[in-house]
Amino acid sequence: MKALNIGLVGTGLMGRAHSNAFRQAPKFFDLKRRPVLKAVCGRDAKKAQAFADNWGYESVESDWQSLIARPDIDLIDVAATNDAHAEIAIAAAKAGKMVMCEKPLGMNPAESRKMVAAVEKAGVPNMVWYNYRRAPAVTMAKQLIDSGKLGKIFHYRAKFLQDWTINADVPQGGPGTWRLDASVSGSGVTGDLLAHCIDTALWLNGTIDSVSGMTETFVKQRKDVATGKKKEVKIDDASAFLARFSNGSLATFEATRYARGHKALNTLEINGEHASLAWDLHDLHRLQWFDHRDDAALRGWRSIHLSEGEHPYVGNWWIPGCQIGFEHTFTHQVADFIAALGKKTPAGPTFKDGLATDYVTDAVLKSAKTGRWTKVKQV
Amino acid sequence: MKALNIGLVGTGLMGRAHSNAFRQAPKFFDLKRRPVLKAVCGRDAKKAQAFADNWGYESVESDWQSLIARPDIDLIDVAATNDAHAEIAIAAAKAGKMVMCEKPLGMNPAESRKMVAAVEKAGVPNMVWYNYRRAPAVTMAKQLIDSGKLGKIFHYRAKFLQDWTINADVPQGGPGTWRLDASVSGSGVTGDLLAHCIDTALWLNGTIDSVSGMTETFVKQRKDVATGKKKEVKIDDASAFLARFSNGSLATFEATRYARGHKALNTLEINGEHASLAWDLHDLHRLQWFDHRDDAALRGWRSIHLSEGEHPYVGNWWIPGCQIGFEHTFTHQVADFIAALGKKTPAGPTFKDGLATDYVTDAVLKSAKTGRWTKVKQV
Amino acid sequence: MKALNIGLVGTGLMGRAHSNAFRQAPKFFDLKRRPVLKAVCGRDAKKAQAFADNWGYESVESDWQSLIARPDIDLIDVAATNDAHAEIAIAAAKAGKMVMCEKPLGMNPAESRKMVAAVEKAGVPNMVWYNYRRAPAVTMAKQLIDSGKLGKIFHYRAKFLQDWTINADVPQGGPGTWRLDASVSGSGVTGDLLAHCIDTALWLNGTIDSVSGMTETFVKQRKDVATGKKKEVKIDDASAFLARFSNGSLATFEATRYARGHKALNTLEINGEHASLAWDLHDLHRLQWFDHRDDAALRGWRSIHLSEGEHPYVGNWWIPGCQIGFEHTFTHQVADFIAALGKKTPAGPTFKDGLATDYVTDAVLKSAKTGRWTKVKQV
Amino acid sequence: MKALNIGLVGTGLMGRAHSNAFRQAPKFFDLKRRPVLKAVCGRDAKKAQAFADNWGYESVESDWQSLIARPDIDLIDVAATNDAHAEIAIAAAKAGKMVMCEKPLGMNPAESRKMVAAVEKAGVPNMVWYNYRRAPAVTMAKQLIDSGKLGKIFHYRAKFLQDWTINADVPQGGPGTWRLDASVSGSGVTGDLLAHCIDTALWLNGTIDSVSGMTETFVKQRKDVATGKKKEVKIDDASAFLARFSNGSLATFEATRYARGHKALNTLEINGEHASLAWDLHDLHRLQWFDHRDDAALRGWRSIHLSEGEHPYVGNWWIPGCQIGFEHTFTHQVADFIAALGKKTPAGPTFKDGLATDYVTDAVLKSAKTGRWTKVKQV
Repeated sequence: MKALNIGLVGTGLMGRAHSNAFRQAPKFFDLKRRPVLKAVCGRDAKKAQAFADNWGYESVESDWQSLIARPDIDLIDVAATNDAHAEIAIAAAKAGKMVMCEKPLGMNPAESRKMVAAVEKAGVPNMVWYNYRRAPAVTMAKQLIDSGKLGKIFHYRAKFLQDWTINADVPQGGPGTWRLDASVSGSGVTGDLLAHCIDTALWLNGTIDSVSGMTETFVKQRKDVATGKKKEVKIDDASAFLARFSNGSLATFEATRYARGHKALNTLEINGEHASLAWDLHDLHRLQWFDHRDDAALRGWRSIHLSEGEHPYVGNWWIPGCQIGFEHTFTHQVADFIAALGKKTPAGPTFKDGLATDYVTDAVLKSAKTGRWTKVKQV
Repeated sequence: MKALNIGLVGTGLMGRAHSNAFRQAPKFFDLKRRPVLKAVCGRDAKKAQAFADNWGYESVESDWQSLIARPDIDLIDVAATNDAHAEIAIAAAKAGKMVMCEKPLGMNPAESRKMVAAVEKAGVPNMVWYNYRRAPAVTMAKQLIDSGKLGKIFHYRAKFLQDWTINADVPQGGPGTWRLDASVSGSGVTGDLLAHCIDTALWLNGTIDSVSGMTETFVKQRKDVATGKKKEVKIDDASAFLARFSNGSLATFEATRYARGHKALNTLEINGEHASLAWDLHDLHRLQWFDHRDDAALRGWRSIHLSEGEHPYVGNWWIPGCQIGFEHTFTHQVADFIAALGKKTPAGPTFKDGLATDYVTDAVLKSAKTGRWTKVKQV
Repeated sequence: MKALNIGLVGTGLMGRAHSNAFRQAPKFFDLKRRPVLKAVCGRDAKKAQAFADNWGYESVESDWQSLIARPDIDLIDVAATNDAHAEIAIAAAKAGKMVMCEKPLGMNPAESRKMVAAVEKAGVPNMVWYNYRRAPAVTMAKQLIDSGKLGKIFHYRAKFLQDWTINADVPQGGPGTWRLDASVSGSGVTGDLLAHCIDTALWLNGTIDSVSGMTETFVKQRKDVATGKKKEVKIDDASAFLARFSNGSLATFEATRYARGHKALNTLEINGEHASLAWDLHDLHRLQWFDHRDDAALRGWRSIHLSEGEHPYVGNWWIPGCQIGFEHTFTHQVADFIAALGKKTPAGPTFKDGLATDYVTDAVLKSAKTGRWTKVKQV
Repeated sequence: MKALNIGLVGTGLMGRAHSNAFRQAPKFFDLKRRPVLKAVCGRDAKKAQAFADNWGYESVESDWQSLIARPDIDLIDVAATNDAHAEIAIAAAKAGKMVMCEKPLGMNPAESRKMVAAVEKAGVPNMVWYNYRRAPAVTMAKQLIDSGKLGKIFHYRAKFLQDWTINADVPQGGPGTWRLDASVSGSGVTGDLLAHCIDTALWLNGTIDSVSGMTETFVKQRKDVATGKKKEVKIDDASAFLARFSNGSLATFEATRYARGHKALNTLEINGEHASLAWDLHDLHRLQWFDHRDDAALRGWRSIHLSEGEHPYVGNWWIPGCQIGFEHTFTHQVADFIAALGKKTPAGPTFKDGLATDYVTDAVLKSAKTGRWTKVKQV
């Protein structure tokens, strides 16, 4: 089996998640190419070496330019902070490497457009790590919708709720808190959390025409990790929007890091003419399903425990009743990416799909500023 | 519409529940006879008068003998403590009155047999207030089982869990705590709580052949309310048993007042060849349903919210989504009792059904003493 | 105990719910005045008589003017269709009667303002039947918020989801479907369902400053019951809005009758600095509670089963574990209305509170038309 | 870091689960020895080679005797069918290897005693793969009980429900169905499923004094995979028992493969004086917790989502809200086994612990035959 040599940039949480996925995918899925953890690079050389030792990377590079320059690397995986996505991904594409990039794609649509142009010009396989599409329950939702079982869609609802920044002493910048520094993250929960909800929504329910958004920054100043001084917080702490999809359905979306009691409550619900479904990340192994075609007296919401061979991806894992965890949304993404190599239809979300999400988040942020409904640019 | 004149004995919790049911049933169900709250009697004259004033009883009697002697009373409702059930019910039957009696029927099968003999000899309509049969979800369970939708039954599970006697300072005897005094209650949780589970089980799943029981009294001595002195506790605080039903299914039953966190968690679950169902009193308006005949990928436990016209009793109440409460298990019992008057098949549970339950509880208590499997006497 | 003579207008679902509440309240709560079902009037004389017979109204009036004219009536309860609220309520106030009125108050703020003026001028006790404030769990939410246990509020979320009009063959106008005819109902789900959510929200979380709304009519034409011909549907089938409360919190609200699988899913969730809570009508006897001050490892959402003496209203009902139903939200409202008679602070929601809700629904509908954020008029 | 060379016997489901655990443990936990997948042996040479290729075993052995004879193997992991556990484990111990053995330990207590004797004589580290102790929620239950937070324990309840053998066409013997052939499995659900419940129970709640059991074989004959002919089924399809623990608490246990709708519903609930807890495998990332010491009005069952640093094992994985799966109960077991090497107290469950469980299952099976309460032999 031919190797697929991976060069990873970034040794944080997502660097770990991706590395684990590359290691695990071939153990559970029949892949035509075998991922090899060839090299990793990170800003902190010592940390990068420790990371390589732990995960089994064969070598360490001190800068991403050197990594991209290596002829033995087939695929550059960008798991750096958001502000570095565009530069690295574009350089990788130019060097003819396949590129997988953490979400959101760029800091803004302008960056993302350049990234799309780069991979398209280079003709290299590319993907954005919107991993939740491949929670088995979300994939099954897609199959159910595509099968027509829901009929006409009336409503879409999505939320992504966290509570880790309520404490005003949480700083901005630095390893664990760069997401609070707009110069590194691009935006707050809109790009970090809503982007996940939007990618899933566009996949499941088609394009969004227009939005009306609202954002808020509850804590106005936070200490900057770099300087130790208070600095204005420029990200959005909370973001919500109303939307109209092209298929005529209405939607509400909301994300926040101020929802006490919710850690990563990524939810979706879709109401169709004949059936409805719902899912959330806190019990990611379940899909809620209501079918109006059931016998009238026996209608009810079903809690489907996705742990059987009939469910997407699940047959490759364990036995009925035994759930898999969060980490394997990434594993499935690796498996699908490799399966699609050389095929006509690439595995989504591609960079182009990532740009579509960026157009929505951009419209949300603009609408929140103008106080008006805003058209969403389409890719 | 002809009146049905009620004479109630007992002004405690169950006296209230029955009175409310007599008042409410005709407002929501078309009844051929109209219950009239004619007279009530209670040990405490002042309390009885206040009770009559509140509920609208037309008169008060100072003793149950006088009540039974009244020619204007059609039905005696026995809501006195367990030790008084047999005497009152037998006298009522002898006087030609219809009799409704709180559960359990007698203090023991010997008493209950005499009660059955009395109502049968008198030929008077009779009923035991095992109210949970008429939670709409339990009634629907009965319909589903009878329709054959579950197929062969393999397993039955029931529990009734409370936690109100964990504190050793709770006394025995007196108004609120007579259930802890075996001379008044007959037994502990076996007759009080398991009896409910057993009545439902016999109704849903047929007769029980044999049982292996276990009981325990965690608090050995409690203050006697009458004397103020410590007295040995002779009731069972907890009781569990294994059972074999005549239909070949296996069962586990358990009741206790030492299950911290559970207030009145009366549960049942039935596993059949094709389908399973489950119910509990803490969410009495829901029935859990699993059907193996659903499409394989979409199989899951459904939570059916019983608030629609298709559900038993429910069409007579409000609108979809708006649940009814505990109290209407009694209301439905009144409605069914009256509906069955003059019909060939009486509304159950009759006194005979109550005796059947007593035979099971008696076998459980005996088995717990002997440490052996015990055959259940059949009515 | 002095009587409180009730004159009811309307014999539909709400007429039943109110009548039941007037009957039941004095049985479970100590009231200083005893509601007497004096007279009822309805458009259909035969139906009105049957209604009176069933519920025990002493007499029937053929028109509401005669009812109001009767000197033996203390309180007019308006349970007619929305288009009749203002006229009847204003006449009742002028006649010096207390007035209880179904929600929403008027057809629009103009009507509602006149209704407020009328009761204020007459100085008569008045109330709007926004019953959900008095689900014990919602009342407890109010107590928890007022106690400061949640700290600063960041987020409010509410929905009211139904699915009964998805079928395009459901007509408009007539007894069961007048809510689909804008000339009778005033508006669609905004006034019917969102109004409930808004009343609760204003009570729990204070005033709303501004909103951005979106409405949709999925089925454009429905048969008119009166003429049998297709007629344009002028109500909103679905309505959602973003809101900013005066306390700085952000909110999303949504109501629809096209959410397959949801019958009357009225929900709310509030996220505070220290704690969060959530409730929904489908399990109205439970309150979800998360407290960040719990031990870190033991933090989790608690499902509080409101059936104990410590919970608002519940001590007057049954025993722990035994839930009450939907109907008693009305019963509690009657009890509180009577308890507040003669007191300085009336029981809410008063007509003025009802107007406040109308100002919000009006702003939502306006915003949905203009596509802009809209300031909410304050009472 | 010193290697820990693993020799695996068995390439079925548990062979996969163990191999995955050996691979993953060092990536997420700091281990003092690094597991190396040295060699695997299986009955089917081709299958064994494919297994080795997939998981990265360095070599393949055709029989377990050769595997044990290899000087470069430190630890023999027995994942063969139950009938082979004793022979292999004893030989491994005699050869001075560490031994990890799938559950149940032996086919019966006689075998298990010899296995214990062998590892004790050899003085080699040993463990039985009762993996559920190390679901983070179960480990946390242990910590909570040991901390005294529950107070005196009154009740223990456990079930393990499956439904995969309801179809009478499922055969016995062969790769996927050897668990139905008593000559290979030793017993049915008692040794396969109840054994899991018992191991957890003994760990959490101490020793069991006596039991009263009941077993049933619903399908009396099944086709033998080897011969293709019908053969009597000698395993128990269902098994339930009552138990008395040494600490005075009462228990019910039940396992079956005929509980329609349940795939691997391994559950436990413990009721203590002050608090109760519950867990089940279908949502293994949650622990249910009720604490009577909470404010009275706010008491309720908490659903704790174990995904935070405060929870056992979890800090080594991902981020709050992102659950881990079934497979990591094994990963944690590997991590703990290695952590305990060289320490005074070995990581449980040791072979001796496995024998203790076998004594309980043996007593259950005996009691089911005699119809009497049976004392449990203690290790």
